[in-house]
Amino acid sequence: MIPLPPSESCPVQRILADLFARHRGCVEGHVASYIPELAKADPDTFGICVATTDGHLYEVGDSRHRFTIQSISKPFVYGLALDEHGLGPMARKVGVEPSGDAFNAISLAKEDGRPLNPMINAGAIATTGQVAAASPGDRIATILDMLRRYTGRTLDIDTAVYESEARTGHRNRAIGHLLRNHDVLTDDPTAAVDDYFRQCSVLVDCRDLAIMAATLANRGVNPLTGERAIRVEHVHSVLSVMASCGMYDSSGSWLYDVGMPAKSGVGGGVLAVLAGQFGIGVFSPRLDKRGNSVRAVRVCVDLSRVWELHQFDPPYCPQTSRRLSYSCAVRHSTRVRREAEFACLRDHGDAVCVHEVQGMLTLATAEPVVRTILAKLEGVKALIIDFGHVTGINASAARILADLAAEIGRRGSRVLFTTTDHLPDLSRIVAEHLGQPTATALCQFAALDPAMESCEDGIIRSFLPAPVPAGSRLDSWEITVGMSATELAVFQSLVSQRTFHCGDRIVRQGDDAHDLFLIVRGVIGVWLGDDSGDARRIASYSAGTMVGGMAFIDGQPRSATLVAESMVDCSVLSRDAFDRLERSHPAMYARMLRNIAASLSAKLRHANESLGVLGNRNG
Amino acid sequence: MIPLPPSESCPVQRILADLFARHRGCVEGHVASYIPELAKADPDTFGICVATTDGHLYEVGDSRHRFTIQSISKPFVYGLALDEHGLGPMARKVGVEPSGDAFNAISLAKEDGRPLNPMINAGAIATTGQVAAASPGDRIATILDMLRRYTGRTLDIDTAVYESEARTGHRNRAIGHLLRNHDVLTDDPTAAVDDYFRQCSVLVDCRDLAIMAATLANRGVNPLTGERAIRVEHVHSVLSVMASCGMYDSSGSWLYDVGMPAKSGVGGGVLAVLAGQFGIGVFSPRLDKRGNSVRAVRVCVDLSRVWELHQFDPPYCPQTSRRLSYSCAVRHSTRVRREAEFACLRDHGDAVCVHEVQGMLTLATAEPVVRTILAKLEGVKALIIDFGHVTGINASAARILADLAAEIGRRGSRVLFTTTDHLPDLSRIVAEHLGQPTATALCQFAALDPAMESCEDGIIRSFLPAPVPAGSRLDSWEITVGMSATELAVFQSLVSQRTFHCGDRIVRQGDDAHDLFLIVRGVIGVWLGDDSGDARRIASYSAGTMVGGMAFIDGQPRSATLVAESMVDCSVLSRDAFDRLERSHPAMYARMLRNIAASLSAKLRHANESLGVLGNRNG
Repeated sequence: MIPLPPSESCPVQRILADLFARHRGCVEGHVASYIPELAKADPDTFGICVATTDGHLYEVGDSRHRFTIQSISKPFVYGLALDEHGLGPMARKVGVEPSGDAFNAISLAKEDGRPLNPMINAGAIATTGQVAAASPGDRIATILDMLRRYTGRTLDIDTAVYESEARTGHRNRAIGHLLRNHDVLTDDPTAAVDDYFRQCSVLVDCRDLAIMAATLANRGVNPLTGERAIRVEHVHSVLSVMASCGMYDSSGSWLYDVGMPAKSGVGGGVLAVLAGQFGIGVFSPRLDKRGNSVRAVRVCVDLSRVWELHQFDPPYCPQTSRRLSYSCAVRHSTRVRREAEFACLRDHGDAVCVHEVQGMLTLATAEPVVRTILAKLEGVKALIIDFGHVTGINASAARILADLAAEIGRRGSRVLFTTTDHLPDLSRIVAEHLGQPTATALCQFAALDPAMESCEDGIIRSFLPAPVPAGSRLDSWEITVGMSATELAVFQSLVSQRTFHCGDRIVRQGDDAHDLFLIVRGVIGVWLGDDSGDARRIASYSAGTMVGGMAFIDGQPRSATLVAESMVDCSVLSRDAFDRLERSHPAMYARMLRNIAASLSAKLRHANESLGVLGNRNG
Repeated sequence: MIPLPPSESCPVQRILADLFARHRGCVEGHVASYIPELAKADPDTFGICVATTDGHLYEVGDSRHRFTIQSISKPFVYGLALDEHGLGPMARKVGVEPSGDAFNAISLAKEDGRPLNPMINAGAIATTGQVAAASPGDRIATILDMLRRYTGRTLDIDTAVYESEARTGHRNRAIGHLLRNHDVLTDDPTAAVDDYFRQCSVLVDCRDLAIMAATLANRGVNPLTGERAIRVEHVHSVLSVMASCGMYDSSGSWLYDVGMPAKSGVGGGVLAVLAGQFGIGVFSPRLDKRGNSVRAVRVCVDLSRVWELHQFDPPYCPQTSRRLSYSCAVRHSTRVRREAEFACLRDHGDAVCVHEVQGMLTLATAEPVVRTILAKLEGVKALIIDFGHVTGINASAARILADLAAEIGRRGSRVLFTTTDHLPDLSRIVAEHLGQPTATALCQFAALDPAMESCEDGIIRSFLPAPVPAGSRLDSWEITVGMSATELAVFQSLVSQRTFHCGDRIVRQGDDAHDLFLIVRGVIGVWLGDDSGDARRIASYSAGTMVGGMAFIDGQPRSATLVAESMVDCSVLSRDAFDRLERSHPAMYARMLRNIAASLSAKLRHANESLGVLGNRNG
């Protein structure tokens, strides 16, 4: 295999390179000139960067070329003001309606002089004015630090652009005074306008824009640094004003053609956000007559089409949150039991239902689960919902599942949520909703298997007569099937009695195998892995069963560690005693071999059944 | 268990009932009076309906109360016009920019007289005028039929409302003539305005609105009838104009507060769409001063908050498209092989990598898969991507996976896509992209297991010496381990030779077990299920292994059907011959039992390993 440079071999990178090549020849539009310093930009520079929400970057062209952020700063400062003041107070200062006018129009509401939205200059200046400033210089320092959280690096102001903007920004100063007149600004408006000029003159590159966008896409957390840049509850507010007003007076057609919240700046940058998925930054300084970068708009239109990123393109999303559903009649826990107990589970196991759910649980994906479970409750005595394959859960999904648990509880059935440790929000919301004792009982099992065991035990208790100590009668064991009274007496003389305390390690993984254990009383757990924390319980054995047969037969080292899960009484058959039997009682020896082989065979049947259920695609 | 009426017991229904109770007391706003007939509406009526994209309905209150659709017809007629003319021609007639003005303002673009968007009256009348009409009455019939596809039932026009609107709609007639003046309408504008009045007078209820919304949420297919109501490529266009202009001049704050494309009508209805998830219909005739139903807006604001439906709330979406990744060194196919072959796979199986992917594959979820695979190609001779747990795939994801396959092919490695039958788009796009022969080779295995077998065979061929016909030497079998020359001779005399042809059923599931099969040459497949179509191949056995041991030992009926997968030569040991051996050669009998038990033990070890990998949560 010949390694190729990643840029050539990666299909994602190649799509960006193709887009770059396709639009690089476009020389339509003009570099902004209303601020003299902006007119000096090299019109041919062109860069694209896409950042994923796990912090991977794809870059092409002049993606590290610096330019001034200009209006792209507006939604971020708006988010900062929301974090400082909250939605209500900000709503009294700046509206969220598209104005239908150009970005520099003085669109103030007739009733109260509020700017119509924070993306036009009037709204942006009003927003900057809301950022707290104890002393001069404080406000821009706060704004720069906010931007640093989004980009992951300290940003500089282009002094020449700032000074050029400050020299010529008479219209923005007029806006500042009008805002002061309407008491939207309550201090000296000159300072707010000056900080607004500075915030517009911050130097960024495409990579910065893409990471800023990916931070919004990632619920406000910078995917590279892990630092939170904005409170999570304000992310959708910022994205909403970008969606309705972000692209000057072609915001409607941008939403129509591209379908992502975005913001452009007269410096030539465009930043677009696909919530939960990507951040995109594009730079090319030639602008169309509405002030948007010609190439950047075309790149985003193409990317949206080629990558199917339009936010209103409903994904084909069948109801896939149910992974597997089964009852204990068809799939058991890994507990190995006596045949009579297995038969009882086959007959009555339908009373225990297991639903394994998967994916991201929201109301839309949890609702079909709730609906299906409610429709099939007839005869169900215990219900287990396993979250092992759930990747995330939001509050609304957690609430309706808590409601479902309460409903099932009211009907007198047992309900368990298993494998919930990785979903702290679920346990928290369940506790808030149903009280801590109920929540603790509901989530008492960290894994599915012990919960299934516990529900199976319940069924066996209610249908089988009180268990005779299973090993107390020699002839009730798997290994003694078909033995004569004489042979049973010989067998009795061969085995020794041993008692283990709860937690005792009976054998360790990797040990040589010397003994076969016949459980008279108690439960033995089978664990893979060591004590370093990745140990996993893969099965358990009940009274009346034998454990340790595999290594006993094939002479391999122990494949697992055996742990007493309660006080355990065993009859123990040693290999030496068994081997001696070959000479002294060959027929009895063969019968025992056959019984051990039959036990292995039964376990293999169970394992194959479990593999069948687990391997089932749409159970 | 006491069954409760579903409305009480379902948590989703209960949330709607709570919302209904919370807002029913609100009597703010006024019933529309600009059309005299509308003023007659009962101001207290109030209904809510939510429809899922799989066609389930949750209803509360007066959800079956009929009212006139009014402006809610606009986006649907716009979709019809897009289907008839396409995006480009429609863009020349009607824009997609919010106007910032009231719904009845005559907002036409200065340059060409185009209405700014299809949601204001001017744009809606222009849109209705684009619907083809060969003769009078045709157009409204076409519109009614389109609405029928969305609701699943035939709709009527409220004649009284239509006549009232027709009597008083002077402003709309003026708009019609202005549109004719600008050549946006090219025929008699009176007919278009008249049909516009009729379309606004169509009678619907909340249930209709919710199903119409769910149809848009479901990529344009009515979830109850399965009928397509609009071409899939125009769904996002309709949703985009709803998002930017759907709620009159509070569209910006609606997007900000609710975050779903929506449309309201002065009849008191509001329809909201959460793409891929839900459709919502609410009705209450008291309107705020912008013309939106007061209660409906509040219900939607609450629903969006409680159910976390805001479209710009990025779901917490970790990169979960990789379900399991492993190599053939740690997890084998279900092929049972000689120990030497298993050892070879343990040593060299890392050259075969399997990636099981899951969920909905879009660019955002496929990209991390592509990236991870490219980063770990060193030493990989064969790569399998299994799609068995993939619920859907869009074109962009299919394309980058095809690109990835091409890239791996160029590097000289083998690549296979398995379990792709349920994803016809994937095979189609791969064929378009790489050509049909490559696509056929890439997707040659319908399931993962035979693909793994095939790749394992490749490894074994390149690392093990050319296989001696494994059964040709008696002492190379599992069952003869440890036998003396004399015993081997006895064994030889006990077994008979049988040959099967490819496709022969060697034993059938449920049969009594008489024979143990020792494979000399060829492969035997193990199948569960019957010939009715749900048969499943669960394992296969190579030369040198024994098959049929479980039933042979425990006397249970055959647990599976055995099928020759090639010309198969077997040595067959009958139960009778084996049982006779117990008396005649007890030591040899015990040795063979022990060997069979060891073979079962080895199979059980493999099954437990597979269960370990399959049960692994984040492999």
